[in-house]
Order: sequence, then structure tokens, then C-alpha cells
Amino acid sequence: MNNLVSMTDLSAEQIMAVIKQAQLFREGAISQLSKSYTMANLFFEPSTRTKMSFEMAERKLQIEVLPFESGFSSTLKGETLYDTIKVLESIGIDALVIRHEENNFFESLIGKVKPVIINGGDGTGNHPTQSLLDIYTIWQEFGTLEDKVISIVGDVSHSRVARSNAHALTRLGAKVRFVCPPQWQGEFDAINEFDEVIESSDVIMMLRVQHERHDGNTSFSKEDYHEAFGLTIEREKRMKESSIIMHPGPFNRDVEIASELIECNRSRIFKQMENGVYVRMAVIEMILKGRE
Amino acid sequence: MNNLVSMTDLSAEQIMAVIKQAQLFREGAISQLSKSYTMANLFFEPSTRTKMSFEMAERKLQIEVLPFESGFSSTLKGETLYDTIKVLESIGIDALVIRHEENNFFESLIGKVKPVIINGGDGTGNHPTQSLLDIYTIWQEFGTLEDKVISIVGDVSHSRVARSNAHALTRLGAKVRFVCPPQWQGEFDAINEFDEVIESSDVIMMLRVQHERHDGNTSFSKEDYHEAFGLTIEREKRMKESSIIMHPGPFNRDVEIASELIECNRSRIFKQMENGVYVRMAVIEMILKGRE
Amino acid sequence: MNNLVSMTDLSAEQIMAVIKQAQLFREGAISQLSKSYTMANLFFEPSTRTKMSFEMAERKLQIEVLPFESGFSSTLKGETLYDTIKVLESIGIDALVIRHEENNFFESLIGKVKPVIINGGDGTGNHPTQSLLDIYTIWQEFGTLEDKVISIVGDVSHSRVARSNAHALTRLGAKVRFVCPPQWQGEFDAINEFDEVIESSDVIMMLRVQHERHDGNTSFSKEDYHEAFGLTIEREKRMKESSIIMHPGPFNRDVEIASELIECNRSRIFKQMENGVYVRMAVIEMILKGRE
Repeated sequence: MNNLVSMTDLSAEQIMAVIKQAQLFREGAISQLSKSYTMANLFFEPSTRTKMSFEMAERKLQIEVLPFESGFSSTLKGETLYDTIKVLESIGIDALVIRHEENNFFESLIGKVKPVIINGGDGTGNHPTQSLLDIYTIWQEFGTLEDKVISIVGDVSHSRVARSNAHALTRLGAKVRFVCPPQWQGEFDAINEFDEVIESSDVIMMLRVQHERHDGNTSFSKEDYHEAFGLTIEREKRMKESSIIMHPGPFNRDVEIASELIECNRSRIFKQMENGVYVRMAVIEMILKGRE
Repeated sequence: MNNLVSMTDLSAEQIMAVIKQAQLFREGAISQLSKSYTMANLFFEPSTRTKMSFEMAERKLQIEVLPFESGFSSTLKGETLYDTIKVLESIGIDALVIRHEENNFFESLIGKVKPVIINGGDGTGNHPTQSLLDIYTIWQEFGTLEDKVISIVGDVSHSRVARSNAHALTRLGAKVRFVCPPQWQGEFDAINEFDEVIESSDVIMMLRVQHERHDGNTSFSKEDYHEAFGLTIEREKRMKESSIIMHPGPFNRDVEIASELIECNRSRIFKQMENGVYVRMAVIEMILKGRE
Repeated sequence: MNNLVSMTDLSAEQIMAVIKQAQLFREGAISQLSKSYTMANLFFEPSTRTKMSFEMAERKLQIEVLPFESGFSSTLKGETLYDTIKVLESIGIDALVIRHEENNFFESLIGKVKPVIINGGDGTGNHPTQSLLDIYTIWQEFGTLEDKVISIVGDVSHSRVARSNAHALTRLGAKVRFVCPPQWQGEFDAINEFDEVIESSDVIMMLRVQHERHDGNTSFSKEDYHEAFGLTIEREKRMKESSIIMHPGPFNRDVEIASELIECNRSRIFKQMENGVYVRMAVIEMILKGRE
């Protein structure tokens, strides 16, 4: 692993190696990096959890993190992403986390610049560390992904998570089903009735309704969406005993998920965020060590 | 002290313990924290002095500080403050300083989240570390607050400082008087003639005229305000010999205070800012040690 | 050297001392600072390369860097630059890098505040660390500046670089010529035909066309400008063998320079950015050590 831009870069073995290293970090392992490194996190779209999660991971690895304010950088003067990254390479940055609204932004970078590139989310395309933390959370729960039934529910066509997760989960042996209204399924096959999958799911992974990506003519009111595709208290009661609830956040309370369920016993929502730090530590350390 | 959200949380003994620890830090004491901690400063309103003062205090305590850009966070996607704080808790933040425009924002957090919450200013409500640094500055000057006459002058109804200070100073034995135009006294008793209090005050604490909180129909021109309620050169000459001038900043030169007085012999304005760092170190250390 | 605000502050000997210290840092020398210092970088105008270059230099010198968000500071409440700097002095900042749109902003600060002031670019006036890194890059190439012919080409009247460089390069023995359209030469003597200087230049230093400072009625289309004053592939072929191309960045590809030339053999563009870190380390260390 030389960079991480998409889950398709990773074999099943590599995914499991990340998961196991994340678990070691969770248990208190300390960084094996032998040099001092400098990183920067370039977030061209708003983010709290992913940006601060990477920042925490980097600090825990004793990496020096330079601040980068995307809203105040030379990209405002029309500089291309490639040119910005070459500048950062020149001043001595070893690795970059980048979130960018353009799908596959990294194609202009991989193989052309020296710093490690880690994709922190590109447009509606990939968000590989989110997939990895989801996989880690499921593995932590069940010890395996083999034959686990995972229902990904909601705004499938606009979700980075759905795309990133679909192939990886399947490759690890899970059975993935998308559940959404017909107009939101994009290129995916999907089940259009949430109630069909409740009892049979080991994992119900709710997606955020992306208000900011729809253009205002969504055919649902919040109440109607909650009724038809939200995880309601009533639906939660029908889930099987061992099954869990996940959500990548940020969530819309009482839209895709009932407010009371956010911190219920089945919910792994904040656990996912904890796991994100360990997974990111694992990814960064593995890539940097691999280049040493 | 488990959090610090309001001066009413603190007994007179606790206030004096903070002051004395601040003095030790000023004299060069080093942090007694036995673990490494991570903090973040969440400022949802503009600030230079308070934010950087906390940041400096944290660095001097060897605390790791994660950057948080409020203008670029998931609160833009409609996330509640509680949910944002739960995210930060999940990624492992130990303590948070929060400034927020909403009065008593902390009520949704205290007792419900793990990180320490320190109020960096809420709406027109509280600003406890400002009160503590004011108290420290007065104590440093006179060795006591007992019977000291403190006149708080200006935009009383919009001032966090006035509210936070009123009770605490009184509890420590000081005699506090508010001085302002009738339309700005809010729920406070106030003297409406500045000239009545000049000679008798040990401390004249000027407040910032909060242009940005008035709605444009202030009844004063800057010149008229300066004449009626500003600390003019003429008024300063009538102050008694040992008395001092304070201002929480940022100040409007030649509105609430004559520009020439900002750095005059009586002025403790920049001393207050120095003291702010030590007081904040004391508060953070005491809370974190108390939880160890 | 007590501050660095303009190249005219520096003698030729001081310039060469900075260059030689920068070279030592490039070769791996480590900081000789005997105390721990705290700095802040105040950029009131957008910047990636200069801000991050300073930040990297400071970190490499083991200096603690406090974040400062200019778009979110008390300057929004109308605070003067002097008052903001006095606040930072009070909280204990040792040195400041400031970029500000106002020419000679530093005149209100030098001799009046304690922190070291390093000019990171003022209006269209000075940008001394850019000049120093340019000089270092030329020195690195030729071992001397004596008799080197340097053509500075482009938007001369709006360029900080042109002003800062003009005198310093000349003082070090270089022969400096400005090349630009008549309407852009400001107070400088200039050659108005680029083709006249190609073959005779040791260094062709292209300037950025400052779209954001022109008011929309520029008399050139991008294509016309590229044809008349851009460094085209055809012009590059006519440069003499040992000569080099420089550009302070950020560059407009295919406006002032052909995209293919950015990383050509003659280009020192990204080398300049590397050198910027070492030059800034040298400046900061020399000033701080001088004050110890």
C-alpha cells in the first residue's frame, strides 16, 4: 500500500491487516515509525469528524501536522490541485489527507507527486477510511464478516459510503443489500421496502439524507421519509437480538433515524467514530512504514 | 470543579485557589499533570484574545491541541452542539473550551458528555475565565478584594463580563457599582452619571461598546458617548492615586476610553491579558487533576 | 537584525549570512536556539506557500506555533493591527510573521511592540523572505550573483517580488532588468520587448499576472499576453545553456509561462519553494538568537 485512494486498491488480506493493526492500536500499541514525519489535512469540503479523526490519529503517531485552511489558500487564486500538492511536496510534507468535491481528484496526483495521498472523501465516489472503520466495527462485533447480512439504507446514490462499502464488504464475504426509494438507488440494485429487511439483517447501516446535495425538490417531507425509510423505534424492536445499528454521521435526528436510537444498546454510531482513529492510525503507519 | 461554565459554580475558596495557582504559574511553576491530554477550542464567534489565550495556556501545560474550524465544521450540515461534542468525545478529546452565541449552551452538555467543558463565553451570559482574570488582576494590585470599590462602566446589559463579575466580586467582599446610560442597564441597578463615581473608585472597569450587538439605532454618536460615559483624559486625572483602569478588550479607542489612556500608568489592560493565560492554566490544570 | 520588514534593512553581508545559514540547514544543521519560543503567523491575505513554508520552518526549529485565523479574529470587531499585536505580546508570543494588504503596515509596530516582526508580504511593497529565497536559489546555481543578468518579466507594478528584489539583487552585483508592457511598469524603467532579453539572461524570473489586482479592463487576453510576454516553449529554446527559469508562484499555466516549462530542466520553481523553508529557518533563528 503506497497510497490509499479507493477500497479497490486493497486486497482482502490488506483490509484484514489494517483491521488487526487498528485493534492493536486500540489495545494500546504505540507507533513503530522510525522517522519524524510531517502531514497536512486538506479538506476542501466541510468536515468535523473525518478531519479531526485524522488529526487525532496523526498526533497519536507523533506526526507533526501543519494546518491548511482551504478557504484561504492559493486555490482561491486559481491554482490547480496538482500545483498546490507540488508546493506542499517542495516544502517537505510527507503525506496528505485530501477531501475534495471532485470525483477521482487523486488521478492527477498518484504516481506524479512524492507525498503519500490518502483519500478523505472524493465527491460521491470513495471514502476508504470510512469503509475500513465500518468493516472494523462489524469485525469487532462478530469476529468475521462471512455471511453477515448488511442492509445499507437511505440515500444510496449520493453516498460515498455506499460506493466504498459495496465491493469491500462483499469481498470479505458479507451479503450486502441496498434499501432506498427507487429515485435514490442510482446505478445500484436496491430493495424499495425497508420493512422487508429488518428481521434478517445483522447490520442496519443507515445513511445520511444529504439535504445539501439534493436540489430542493425531494419528493419526501422529513416525516414521510422517517415513516417510510427511517429507523423508527418500532422497526428497531423487530431487529434480531444480536444485530447492530450503524451510521457514518453526521446524522439527521428523526429523519433517517429516531433520535432515541442514536445511543441505544444496539447503536455502534459513536463506537464507529472511536474506531475511525485507530483505523486511520493503522493506514497511515502502514503506508509510511512501507515507504521507509 | 469538574467543569467551568459559570462563576456561580465556584465558591470564594475555589476562586482564591485558582488565583493562587495562577500566581504560581506566573512565577514559573510548571504543570503537575501526570498524563498527556488532548483539547480543542470551539469558538463559534470571532475571538482573538480569548482563543489564543486558552491555546497558549494549553500549550504551556503540554496539552495537545487539535484545531477546530467552526466555520467549516459539520454544524454547517445542521448537527447539534451535543452531537458535535459526542463526536469529539468519541475521537478521544479530554477537554473542550466552547464559545457559543447561545445563552447557557452548556446545559445540553453538562452531565451528558465525558469531556471537561470550559465556557469561553456564552451569548450575553457568562464568561467565567474573564471574571477570574479580572479578579486576579485586582488581587495582584491590592492583595485583597475586601471593600474595594469597583465601577463597571458602559454597555452593561450586553456584557458577559458584567454578569459574570457582578456576583463573584461581591462574594469576595468588593463593592460593585454599574454605571451606564439608563437604556443600557438591563436588569441591573445602575448609576447613570459617570462623574459621580470617578473619585471614589479603586477600579474603573470599562466595558466595550458592543456595536455589533446594537441594531443601529443607538442613541449616541461616538463623540457623545465618549463625552458622557467614556474614560476621558480629564476623568482619569480625577481618579485617586492608587486606583486602576481595566478593560476586557477589544476596546474602541476614543469611544469608551481615550486612546492615550490605553497604556497609561494606571492601565492594567494588557496586564489583564497576561493574567488570562495564567488563570486559564490554573483552571484547566485544576479540573484535569481533579478528574485524574 | 532585530526584525525583518524590508530588504533595505539588510546589508550585503547580512544577506550572505542568511544564505549561508540556509545552506547549512539544507545540509542538515539543527537549530541552535537555546530557549523554547512561541510564534504565530498572521496572514490577512490568502496564502498557501508562504504561510505553510513559514510554518514548516518554525516547526523544524522546534518553535511552538499558535494558530491565528485572520478571518475570525477581533480585527472583525474593528481592532487596529497595533492593538491585536499588543494582545499577542501580552499572552507571550515571541515572534510574528505578518502578511497584510496595507503597504508598510509594520510602521505602526516596529520599535513599539516586543515580538519580532517578520514581514510576510505587505500590499505591493515588500516580501523580503521571497527575495532571500530567490537570491539563495541564484547563488546555489552560480555560486555568486556578481554580473549575473536577471530579467524580471511581467506584472512589475503590482509585484511585491519586483520591488523587494530590485535593490537587493543589484547590491549583490547582479544586473537586473524589468521586462513588461508599458502600462505595467509602474515607476520602474523597463524593456517592453521580451524577445530582446531571452538570449542574454542568466535568470528569467517570471512574475504572476495578478488577475485579482487588475480591475477587469486588462488590455490583454490570456493568449495575447502569453504570446507577447509569456515564457513560451519557443522562447525557452533560445535561452542560453546555463540559464534558469524562476517564478515565485502561484503561477498561471499558459499565461505567463507555458505549462510544459513548469517542471522542465531549467526550471527552479519548486526548488525555490524548497529553499524558502531553509531561508526562513535562517532568518527566524538569526533574529531570535540575536535577541537572546
